Amino acid sequence: MTRKELIKQIKTKRSFLCIGLDSDINKIPKHLLAFEDPVFEFNKQIIDATKHLCVSYKINTAFYECRGLAGWRCLVNTFNYLPKDIFSIADAKRGDIGNTSSMYADAFFDKESSGLSFDSVTVAPYMGADSVKPFLKYSDKWVVLLALTSNESAKDFQFLESKSGFLFENVLVKSQEWANEENMMYVVGATKGKAFADIRKLAPNHFLLVPGIGAQGGSLRDVCQYGINKDCGLIVNSSRAIIYASNGEDFANAARNEAEKLQLEMAIEIEKIGF
Amino acid sequence: MTRKELIKQIKTKRSFLCIGLDSDINKIPKHLLAFEDPVFEFNKQIIDATKHLCVSYKINTAFYECRGLAGWRCLVNTFNYLPKDIFSIADAKRGDIGNTSSMYADAFFDKESSGLSFDSVTVAPYMGADSVKPFLKYSDKWVVLLALTSNESAKDFQFLESKSGFLFENVLVKSQEWANEENMMYVVGATKGKAFADIRKLAPNHFLLVPGIGAQGGSLRDVCQYGINKDCGLIVNSSRAIIYASNGEDFANAARNEAEKLQLEMAIEIEKIGF
Repeated sequence: MTRKELIKQIKTKRSFLCIGLDSDINKIPKHLLAFEDPVFEFNKQIIDATKHLCVSYKINTAFYECRGLAGWRCLVNTFNYLPKDIFSIADAKRGDIGNTSSMYADAFFDKESSGLSFDSVTVAPYMGADSVKPFLKYSDKWVVLLALTSNESAKDFQFLESKSGFLFENVLVKSQEWANEENMMYVVGATKGKAFADIRKLAPNHFLLVPGIGAQGGSLRDVCQYGINKDCGLIVNSSRAIIYASNGEDFANAARNEAEKLQLEMAIEIEKIGF
Repeated sequence: MTRKELIKQIKTKRSFLCIGLDSDINKIPKHLLAFEDPVFEFNKQIIDATKHLCVSYKINTAFYECRGLAGWRCLVNTFNYLPKDIFSIADAKRGDIGNTSSMYADAFFDKESSGLSFDSVTVAPYMGADSVKPFLKYSDKWVVLLALTSNESAKDFQFLESKSGFLFENVLVKSQEWANEENMMYVVGATKGKAFADIRKLAPNHFLLVPGIGAQGGSLRDVCQYGINKDCGLIVNSSRAIIYASNGEDFANAARNEAEKLQLEMAIEIEKIGF
């Protein structure tokens, strides 16, 4: 998906919501366990109920890998069920030496090779340029690079300060030598509040993928106040607060209601930037 | 596997060799394509030919994920074929927020959940303590944390210098608050030569997993000169130079010969430390 197509979708849907399909077989409603693949059934119903409210789905691969082969099959089936006009994110946080990152790129981008062809994949920056560049060889595919993550321990290394600023600032600056706002986004946690203002100085035009709303305590208001730009420039993710809104047979409706609450808040925010 | 068992294996086999099963369906001998799962057949024959010469096998997950479901099945079959007295490494370079890293830990350590139960998994440190700790909850399982990687672009971020030293030095020091030499190792690239001496000041007793011998240009001699400790403390990996030593029907023999060359060099090195 191109940047232009993504922005168009945001304008049309009045939303910049990403729904995280962090679907855990131990947390989904019990009546689904009667299905052959309970997690796939769960995802299907969540997608059907919410696809008009969001511009992106994010599949966190850990939740599928932990079930081994059955989980990987569910991941492929879920990917195939995603509406193709919605921005898909493989939240895989991969990254390895060049020839190996090429393999990871094939895993998430090359349908012929792996059965998967996500629009984007999250990548960890620790190993530097040659670990990221192989993901950038696919046209209309994106790298979503970890910059400032939403977790408490982000402070352990991401705030280490060198002459050229904090580590996450170095990641933001250095990575712009490898890619631009047409094929790279950054992960910035919603829990970081005012840090968004500093990040916008370093990456004014990039889209930011923002986890941490809801269960992790981040505020949509703060994120928009400091992080929105003229093209919106935000994809805000919510996982648990939406997909586990109810544990009963009404889970899909409950998920739609939660997604709609966020979409309505988002509509107000993008109204403000004249969309 | 415990540290004691690992050291015993090194003493018995006169080797600290790890063989990386970076098995690429496009690079394996063509006659294997007649098998139902060519990569599994390749791995099986490599394992049969080399298991007396190495103390560890490392499976880089990228090479399996890139083939989607078939690749993941091959990964599980290969894991099941590994001799259980040999130290197994899932070279997956995972790492995510706490509840997600728990899922990754299940994926690689919990056989009941995923079908896999490696002795260790490689983890990327960027997200800090809470992304690493979930992997440390399993007894006799190890985290192999990225510290100083073998690739050229390691310099992009790993050598950023703060008041508390280079980023990789911070990783070495900080992570010792989370784990000790009984359940954590570090990745240090063989291409880093004298950096091993500095690393040994910060982590004198830990095992180091050392990739970068062979195809990537690192020297076993340098690694041992600066990196070996009284318990050996090294697991040196070779992938391509061993598994692709021949492209013909003799590939397994050729792999054994290459592995044996390294094992003989290693026997000399561990003789020197009085093993």
